[in-house]
Amino acid sequence: MADKQSTKPPAGTRDFLPDEIRRRHYVVGIIREVYEKYGYEPLETPAFENIETLVGKYGEEGSKLIFKILRRGEHEKTGDADLALRYDLTVPLARVVAQYQHELPKFFKRYQIQPVWRADRPAKGRFREFFQCDIDALGSTSPVVESELLAAVAEVLSRLGFDDFVIRVNHRRALTALLDCAGVPAALHGDALVAIDKLDKVGVNGVRDELQSRGIDAAATMQCLEFFSGTTTDDPRSPGAISRLRNFVASHHAGPAAVDALDEIVALTDGTAAHGRIRVDPSLARGLSYYTGAIMEVAVPDLAGSLGGGGRYDNLVGMFLGRDVPACGFSLGLERIIVVMTERGMFPAAVASGAVDIMVTIWNVAARGDALQLASEMRAAGVRVDVYPEADKLGKQFKYASSRNVPLVAVVGDDERERGEVTVKDLRRGDQTSMPRREVATYVKSRVNG
Amino acid sequence: MADKQSTKPPAGTRDFLPDEIRRRHYVVGIIREVYEKYGYEPLETPAFENIETLVGKYGEEGSKLIFKILRRGEHEKTGDADLALRYDLTVPLARVVAQYQHELPKFFKRYQIQPVWRADRPAKGRFREFFQCDIDALGSTSPVVESELLAAVAEVLSRLGFDDFVIRVNHRRALTALLDCAGVPAALHGDALVAIDKLDKVGVNGVRDELQSRGIDAAATMQCLEFFSGTTTDDPRSPGAISRLRNFVASHHAGPAAVDALDEIVALTDGTAAHGRIRVDPSLARGLSYYTGAIMEVAVPDLAGSLGGGGRYDNLVGMFLGRDVPACGFSLGLERIIVVMTERGMFPAAVASGAVDIMVTIWNVAARGDALQLASEMRAAGVRVDVYPEADKLGKQFKYASSRNVPLVAVVGDDERERGEVTVKDLRRGDQTSMPRREVATYVKSRVNG
Repeated sequence: MADKQSTKPPAGTRDFLPDEIRRRHYVVGIIREVYEKYGYEPLETPAFENIETLVGKYGEEGSKLIFKILRRGEHEKTGDADLALRYDLTVPLARVVAQYQHELPKFFKRYQIQPVWRADRPAKGRFREFFQCDIDALGSTSPVVESELLAAVAEVLSRLGFDDFVIRVNHRRALTALLDCAGVPAALHGDALVAIDKLDKVGVNGVRDELQSRGIDAAATMQCLEFFSGTTTDDPRSPGAISRLRNFVASHHAGPAAVDALDEIVALTDGTAAHGRIRVDPSLARGLSYYTGAIMEVAVPDLAGSLGGGGRYDNLVGMFLGRDVPACGFSLGLERIIVVMTERGMFPAAVASGAVDIMVTIWNVAARGDALQLASEMRAAGVRVDVYPEADKLGKQFKYASSRNVPLVAVVGDDERERGEVTVKDLRRGDQTSMPRREVATYVKSRVNG
Repeated sequence: MADKQSTKPPAGTRDFLPDEIRRRHYVVGIIREVYEKYGYEPLETPAFENIETLVGKYGEEGSKLIFKILRRGEHEKTGDADLALRYDLTVPLARVVAQYQHELPKFFKRYQIQPVWRADRPAKGRFREFFQCDIDALGSTSPVVESELLAAVAEVLSRLGFDDFVIRVNHRRALTALLDCAGVPAALHGDALVAIDKLDKVGVNGVRDELQSRGIDAAATMQCLEFFSGTTTDDPRSPGAISRLRNFVASHHAGPAAVDALDEIVALTDGTAAHGRIRVDPSLARGLSYYTGAIMEVAVPDLAGSLGGGGRYDNLVGMFLGRDVPACGFSLGLERIIVVMTERGMFPAAVASGAVDIMVTIWNVAARGDALQLASEMRAAGVRVDVYPEADKLGKQFKYASSRNVPLVAVVGDDERERGEVTVKDLRRGDQTSMPRREVATYVKSRVNG
């Protein structure tokens, strides 16, 4: 049966072996628990959609990256595709909102954690199959929505053990006002946002060069720089950012209202898990053009790029419904969070270490039933137990447990069985203790957690 | 943006709305918890495989049901496929076993719960995207493996609340011996197994007709019937089944050893969670030809078909490795388990009911921050809390909570806020209570769980 074909997973995809999956389950478990505590409800959609649902939704570049599924049976030879793999979680959400409009609540708060597939050229950290982890709250334009969302995200990150993150927030309409007031023509706003978004990376001079190379005239460039260069000494994320922004856009028809909206969102988070985590940052632009209000992004000091981002986008989720649906969402960078937590050693010992707490050895063939019963007794008390399957030499069984990072092994020799005792050997410390059988589960739990 | 295209999920697939996902998460959570307690480790593989990995592995009929993915970019117009969606979890396991042979433990016990895709004609209860839920223990031929697996499956079903299941077990080599001894020619064993497997449904006379129509001669048919018709009065699943089987195959070169192996597996489960759940059933055949030893299937009285099945298959998982790998596996019928549990109302109230324990109302615009803070306090105590996003009329907010099956609502009027109190209204019972704010989380938890 052996053939020489590759047994690697397809390019850009990964097999997740147990150690990796335990880490992923841990992170996803916390995200789910926190999001559900905030009233976000789980949604899952099929891996593929009818091809018409996806085509035309992701621009020209995006369309090229969609995995298409060949028609089947007699139609296979036409080379036509009728289905396509999920490319993001937003278009499926929009489809669900239209399909179940009479069943879903008016304020639909959903989270969705599922893989998406994109035929990008594989590269370090860039995969063709990767998980997205989105929350979105639909149906209301109230700033309570943004504040709840910021609180939920902050609680997720805190619970995962991040203690140095901030969530940068800005407002798309405040940015528009700022650019208007600086004299950047509306047609060049997109270019200006790209330049300003790089303030973090390239500094004020870099932004100036980029603004000019993108055709923004000297006067407008100077106005922008005047606002942002003040921020080299006066950090734009300082509490003063709101008032500086308010002053700068005071004469704009929509600017003050946008700044007030931003101010209100921040104020509403004061009593929540996001307290102390929010930084108003007028230079935050976020690339996607569909945002219509608040925008937000999680930053961690030693990490280029973010752990997630989002914002309000009131004109997108209604695409299949035929009318606008107010929406505010946030996408956690699950893959990146796992990478950072792994690098920083942030996983609890129970997740980072082996699969089970103890392995029961097999003394001899006649003792197999007793070994299974001992395992059963400990499992009934909640201990994670493996049983060595064969009556091998004891040393070989210990070595196997060691190689699997199992901290403890249980041995029941003939004498011990007669006395109703179990010997537990600690493979990390090298010591061993005998005890009555009824005490072993408690002992194992104290040893493993201690 | 509205167009008239369908917003249904693709044929044969499902959108899982929150109530359904909560049920699925509950079931999968218990399966994972129990399997991990037994030392089975999680594995996940990509949704698609290189097409060569799958083609030729599922027979002619299976091949037609594989979803193939069109090549991308300049190759798209060739109509060729280079990838295909996962069709089962066994071929990916075999690939993983070959690819990571030096990293995986000698006795690799893995579970895998992921969707698979088959282009079957959609029908009631038959989907094109459905979850498989497999455990497999590789690397050992010891009967400890089968017994552990039976114990784990029994514990999963008990924990899910099934109190009336039995696990039927048989042995493929004992069946072969039985047919040999009955005089069924080896070439007709497959046909005979199909007929005998129907004993449950069609009775002894039905089996006789089917055996004869499949070309098994009168003498052999009579021999088979003699064995199985004894079972109309003497239930084949009675404790006597093993000895009747042993007697029938006593003269066979491999029969007694197979019966002993089966006997041993059953005996080893005595001290485990499978105790009292195992029934030796010589008529159990299970269709798949790849089984080489014990076979097993879960039966529930009022359900045609099974909740899962499995067995030993020592010649399959090594397909990419080039040598046989002993293996014993079990596949739980996740989709069917969820259907049965839903029909029988087996889900705990917290899973079956709404998403949150309490909804905080918004008294007026000025009180929004306070409402968010109250929510935050309760969430910190582990309560699941939603916040109504807008300062609507209170009656409207109550009605919304009711429509969402939220049992409790919190109201903080201006007076109450001044006194540091919260009023909690129980929407199911209609009563309401005021209490100091610091007591509200405890109160909510007692009301919801009480």
